[in-house]
Amino acid sequence: MNHFQARTDLALEARESVSDADSSLHGVIVNEEYDEEKDIRVTTVDITTKNGAKAMGKPMGRYVTIETPTLSEEDEDYHREISECIARIIHTIIPGREEMSVLVVGLGNREVTADALGPHVVDNLAINRHMLMEYGKAAYGNKKMHTLSGLETGVMGKTGMEASEIVKGVVSQIKPDIIIAVDALAARNTKRLNRTIQITDTGIMPGSGVGNHRNALTKSNMGIPVIAIGVPTVVDGATIVIDAFERLFEEENKVCNREYMEECRKALPELSNMYVTCKDIDAVIKRVSYTLSEGLNIALSEKS
Amino acid sequence: MNHFQARTDLALEARESVSDADSSLHGVIVNEEYDEEKDIRVTTVDITTKNGAKAMGKPMGRYVTIETPTLSEEDEDYHREISECIARIIHTIIPGREEMSVLVVGLGNREVTADALGPHVVDNLAINRHMLMEYGKAAYGNKKMHTLSGLETGVMGKTGMEASEIVKGVVSQIKPDIIIAVDALAARNTKRLNRTIQITDTGIMPGSGVGNHRNALTKSNMGIPVIAIGVPTVVDGATIVIDAFERLFEEENKVCNREYMEECRKALPELSNMYVTCKDIDAVIKRVSYTLSEGLNIALSEKS
Amino acid sequence: MNHFQARTDLALEARESVSDADSSLHGVIVNEEYDEEKDIRVTTVDITTKNGAKAMGKPMGRYVTIETPTLSEEDEDYHREISECIARIIHTIIPGREEMSVLVVGLGNREVTADALGPHVVDNLAINRHMLMEYGKAAYGNKKMHTLSGLETGVMGKTGMEASEIVKGVVSQIKPDIIIAVDALAARNTKRLNRTIQITDTGIMPGSGVGNHRNALTKSNMGIPVIAIGVPTVVDGATIVIDAFERLFEEENKVCNREYMEECRKALPELSNMYVTCKDIDAVIKRVSYTLSEGLNIALSEKS
Amino acid sequence: MNHFQARTDLALEARESVSDADSSLHGVIVNEEYDEEKDIRVTTVDITTKNGAKAMGKPMGRYVTIETPTLSEEDEDYHREISECIARIIHTIIPGREEMSVLVVGLGNREVTADALGPHVVDNLAINRHMLMEYGKAAYGNKKMHTLSGLETGVMGKTGMEASEIVKGVVSQIKPDIIIAVDALAARNTKRLNRTIQITDTGIMPGSGVGNHRNALTKSNMGIPVIAIGVPTVVDGATIVIDAFERLFEEENKVCNREYMEECRKALPELSNMYVTCKDIDAVIKRVSYTLSEGLNIALSEKS
Repeated sequence: MNHFQARTDLALEARESVSDADSSLHGVIVNEEYDEEKDIRVTTVDITTKNGAKAMGKPMGRYVTIETPTLSEEDEDYHREISECIARIIHTIIPGREEMSVLVVGLGNREVTADALGPHVVDNLAINRHMLMEYGKAAYGNKKMHTLSGLETGVMGKTGMEASEIVKGVVSQIKPDIIIAVDALAARNTKRLNRTIQITDTGIMPGSGVGNHRNALTKSNMGIPVIAIGVPTVVDGATIVIDAFERLFEEENKVCNREYMEECRKALPELSNMYVTCKDIDAVIKRVSYTLSEGLNIALSEKS
Repeated sequence: MNHFQARTDLALEARESVSDADSSLHGVIVNEEYDEEKDIRVTTVDITTKNGAKAMGKPMGRYVTIETPTLSEEDEDYHREISECIARIIHTIIPGREEMSVLVVGLGNREVTADALGPHVVDNLAINRHMLMEYGKAAYGNKKMHTLSGLETGVMGKTGMEASEIVKGVVSQIKPDIIIAVDALAARNTKRLNRTIQITDTGIMPGSGVGNHRNALTKSNMGIPVIAIGVPTVVDGATIVIDAFERLFEEENKVCNREYMEECRKALPELSNMYVTCKDIDAVIKRVSYTLSEGLNIALSEKS
Repeated sequence: MNHFQARTDLALEARESVSDADSSLHGVIVNEEYDEEKDIRVTTVDITTKNGAKAMGKPMGRYVTIETPTLSEEDEDYHREISECIARIIHTIIPGREEMSVLVVGLGNREVTADALGPHVVDNLAINRHMLMEYGKAAYGNKKMHTLSGLETGVMGKTGMEASEIVKGVVSQIKPDIIIAVDALAARNTKRLNRTIQITDTGIMPGSGVGNHRNALTKSNMGIPVIAIGVPTVVDGATIVIDAFERLFEEENKVCNREYMEECRKALPELSNMYVTCKDIDAVIKRVSYTLSEGLNIALSEKS
Repeated sequence: MNHFQARTDLALEARESVSDADSSLHGVIVNEEYDEEKDIRVTTVDITTKNGAKAMGKPMGRYVTIETPTLSEEDEDYHREISECIARIIHTIIPGREEMSVLVVGLGNREVTADALGPHVVDNLAINRHMLMEYGKAAYGNKKMHTLSGLETGVMGKTGMEASEIVKGVVSQIKPDIIIAVDALAARNTKRLNRTIQITDTGIMPGSGVGNHRNALTKSNMGIPVIAIGVPTVVDGATIVIDAFERLFEEENKVCNREYMEECRKALPELSNMYVTCKDIDAVIKRVSYTLSEGLNIALSEKS
């Protein structure tokens, strides 16, 4: 069947969209692990060839997805088990040097609830660069440690600058070894919202998320590795309609061809500037951002 | 054609949903005025009979709608012309007493951008009750004036109380003559978002908006008249799909029957807890709330 | 020596201000316990007679003070040991009924950092009244439990109402068994700031704190017991000067008489509208409010 | 008389501290204008020699101070007359090029009310760089105009970076012609709070304000001119005591020598980390930041 590829930031969803006939696809390796006790599924998608990248519509690299239905639910311990899972994955992706200077960039708009994930994650990090600059490692008992700094880039409407311009400038000044960029993502399917975490070593490409605040935070653009961590909190307005159509037609055993869908998209111009999110997004962002912060704090507080 | 009545808080949209055959509908009187120069359309829907209320799915009373395409756009003067239009309409709806005690209630959730309209409107009001209580009218040159107080009810998840319980308690204590409740609304059509203001003397009924924070702020419940002012900032998640289907089928000259639509709704269960809003909703709320505050300040700063 | 009694919300400081000659003071019983391991000092001041109340400038009742130098410092566990200490004290003060309806009131101004303690404490409570109203105790496995609701009163300049009016109204509507009011306090001595917690069964009297937002939240005014929990976060502007003078004169072995001090106060009129706070008050409020919320959650989550 | 020089960010106050015997001071030229109708006093202090800079404890350059008692008071028009005065002064200080790229930097901590002036000013600017980058001047009718971008640097405890590091990095990337830095200042005298605006072409030197967020935003450090705009919103905790002592001793006709004062300062160690501000600082910051934003918008919206 001929699917229309709706917009998604998740490699997992991109993989699903690639047709079954291509399932022996060269250059896309999928590996899945499931922890039954904790109900955490970790899927690793490695895109290893240009053909694979083309088929997936994503750059070459590693995409690790954590799926856990409880992520956005209340938890006394703020889902420490998920934070620890995040930390483990970061350790496998991060280059191996013992003591690194890490700049965590919180992308997104603090004033728009569904887009405020990045800024909230930066709020709760155990930032230490200023202490290490002033007092040295003596302030921390001379143990080996990473240097951690954090940056909220704000939104283009208020800064007049691309997030990438601000990050590039700051990188040129403080010279970190690696960037970790955190952002709210757009999923294709509402079922993935607020229960999926994607960690990738490919950085963040433009044109996704709630706003267009993400212009090429990649190694080729920044000069240092960029790890991106994202959680889908919204679905694109047009995507939700297209997706609903598809499912409906599938149930009706009708064929829904791509041209028809494109027509449909054109018929819904006002949806292109809209997004769909859940009604308790404020509580979701508060909880998920805390779990992510803790994941980063665990990953970076000790030598990797 | 048999339309499915998607959820809307706007009497204007409810009227459109009622079939053409009923256009000579008894008990629903529509009057429209258009100011070409300012591009402001004011539509008054009076529901005068129980039959009219049943057909419309709205309680009997007056619903005045201001439609103006520039409402959410940037404006040096914060759309003073719209504020003045709001003030005029409030003057026609408000009971005639010269000096009243008015309690403005800001409904909604400050932490969810699209739902924060009410709290932001209360932030910018010219509250004077505490001054009048302490210094009397001498503080204002002994001129005739309304007494203005403001209340943000918060959200049930944080208070454990219905907004209506809090308002009823406060009303019993400070005994205002009238309540004006401000809230973000749900529209059926994305084209109405952020450009429509509805002012009604029927109060606010439960089950609408982004959250379910509005339990019967009505005269029969509160014991005093309740004027409600709302601006649609979201569309219900399921509604947007249903609406898109309808338009698509209309274009295709196919019949889209109600049963089919209900099936579709059932097929999209996860949408029932979701809403659609625009990407620059933070800027929209900031601007629109200011225009509404000014409308109330103008309406209430002088004797009506 | 003749001390001038500077303004303080702390019974502990009031006690210190009462002259040594009165140390056999009838009607004021002081009991102190110190946990060396945790470095937590708990002082209980019982004012049992009208004379005692007059001498102390505080109403009759019990004032328990927790002093711990680490309260506002960073702690991985958010000072769980202090939260547990708070819970124990609340259990000794709260009347003995097994299942109560408790309304927690967050006094103060969210927009002024040093005054935002109350609102932040309410933000992090395990509110359950709305769940119990809708689903009953079945939602919680039918175990015995308190019903918890929360209220942020806002500030008079934005509401036009006294906090006490709003609380009284809400109490009349939802009929809780007890009020717990949380507020930022004014200390006399900067050394007490952000390291002292006062818990009292006398409620909160007007005229203290950063703003004047606290008008008589007492049992006689509310009709139900009012427990007040406060942390001193500011010192009154005039008090700090007076206090500095006193200490200076003491060091100089000079007598600093009361009349002189009053003159000094008159000479500093602009200080009456000012307060003193520490530079990292944002981090302090974030941490301390969390420790207080947890104390309340522990105290109220199980049957007392 | 031998004054102790308490900490102040205001050249005006520094000038007052310089003893009368030095009033014929070379290298410090003071010029004052007073608009009686608007009650606005503009004082220009030019420090033209190294000796003058040493005597004043301020770098060489121009310091223009606007004093107006109504600055922080409510005003329907947000004190447009003051905004226009700010714009005029900026035009006299700014280098003469017709079309410049201007980066406005909002220093300070959004989470601490008295320190949030800079971030709030940036919130309300008419930022246009992103529009000009994407659409060119055609988007604005091809008229001559400045390019405006804005940056909030955050606080060191959350970023791990000096504000100056972030600004320097961003400057290296977007290459503006000039920086305008806005910050809350520390005054010596409470009478100056919230009614004084200082505009200088010397940039901002470290070690002042509420926090220590300002490390050398100067032309020599940044490579481009730095105009600094500040409003005193706090007085240093130790300063207020020292100042009160001085005034008291003056009234008593006693000599208050510097050594004595230093002793006093040592006796008050806990005050070094504290500041004094007024109780309605939230309303003050809201109003004053708006007046400053408008001043910048007027100054930069047209060719200078």
